[in-house]
Amino acid sequence: MSKPGQYPEALHHIIACFSRLPGIGRRTAERLAIAIMSWPEEHLADFGTALCELRQRVHPCAICGNFTETPTCAICQDETRQRGLLCVVEHASQVMALENSACFHGLYHVLGGKLSPLSGKGPDDLRLAELQERLRQQPITELIIATSPDVEGEATAHFIANMLADLPITISRIAAGVPVGSDLNFADAATLAMALQGRRQID
Amino acid sequence: MSKPGQYPEALHHIIACFSRLPGIGRRTAERLAIAIMSWPEEHLADFGTALCELRQRVHPCAICGNFTETPTCAICQDETRQRGLLCVVEHASQVMALENSACFHGLYHVLGGKLSPLSGKGPDDLRLAELQERLRQQPITELIIATSPDVEGEATAHFIANMLADLPITISRIAAGVPVGSDLNFADAATLAMALQGRRQID
Repeated sequence: MSKPGQYPEALHHIIACFSRLPGIGRRTAERLAIAIMSWPEEHLADFGTALCELRQRVHPCAICGNFTETPTCAICQDETRQRGLLCVVEHASQVMALENSACFHGLYHVLGGKLSPLSGKGPDDLRLAELQERLRQQPITELIIATSPDVEGEATAHFIANMLADLPITISRIAAGVPVGSDLNFADAATLAMALQGRRQID
Repeated sequence: MSKPGQYPEALHHIIACFSRLPGIGRRTAERLAIAIMSWPEEHLADFGTALCELRQRVHPCAICGNFTETPTCAICQDETRQRGLLCVVEHASQVMALENSACFHGLYHVLGGKLSPLSGKGPDDLRLAELQERLRQQPITELIIATSPDVEGEATAHFIANMLADLPITISRIAAGVPVGSDLNFADAATLAMALQGRRQID
């Protein structure tokens, strides 16, 4: 039984679950748990069942590693995509970010992270063997490395570029620079350095 | 099957569930859904099961309406509480807020809302009959009305005070005023008016 001044055990448990979410602190978790106490029963069951079934339903695409409910994802199955273009990203969530830009019509390859010696993530922990296999079997002409423009993302990009240097494909890196719509005043020194380094002639 | 540029159906569903939470917009819901994709299976099952079971496990206390897993809540069962003091609150979550102040050792009565003609909430929708029944059966000497100090909360407080005017009990209202630790500059006119009205002689 819960003591006075404490939430009942089941509510306490829900608060702990919400607290595991990124950016949700103890107070917000409490607020969310109390809010769902007034949800209709079917919304609670709906949410609960969706969470329980999530892992069985959504899994990585067998080819690219994107989220999918079918053996291979919608993008890999789409015959209209440019099959010579392959874009390498760290996480499946970044596929959606790039898709939303509507500027890339090739295929993707999800690494499942970036090289990070400090957190013990080496080349064997990324889907690099699968990448080499795809490049061997599919008619890829250009590989766009879209890992994050931070130290680890850059190291991963260089590692991949070195690994594939002997292949007859173009290897490119997405541009790092000042974000569109922002002010130079808010850009940090490293971003400005990259923006200057990656300058393009106006033609 | 999901279209390119769309999340798989199950992930979409989770995003919709997160979006139902207060203060969680579409973007945050996406971020949370993607975050839980990398949770271990047992955490997902844990969260999902907790949500499904919540309504069966936690329900209102038969006496006061506070959250409980037992027929009556821990506060109502606690023999050390002052049984002559009854504090009326709108929601069960406010019981916890008052308990955390550690300044009240009486019992509670949860109304389940406040009078709100605009949203069609009248006296019959609140646990007022239960309150009268408790006052008849239990040796209550003071009733502290702790509804919110807004228009509807005040109206509810006055309604209760009128309803119980004939009973030989003291009826009091929590003080409204400038919050402790805040600056007078940030207090609105209505709060300052209440603070002045409710001034106390320094002795």
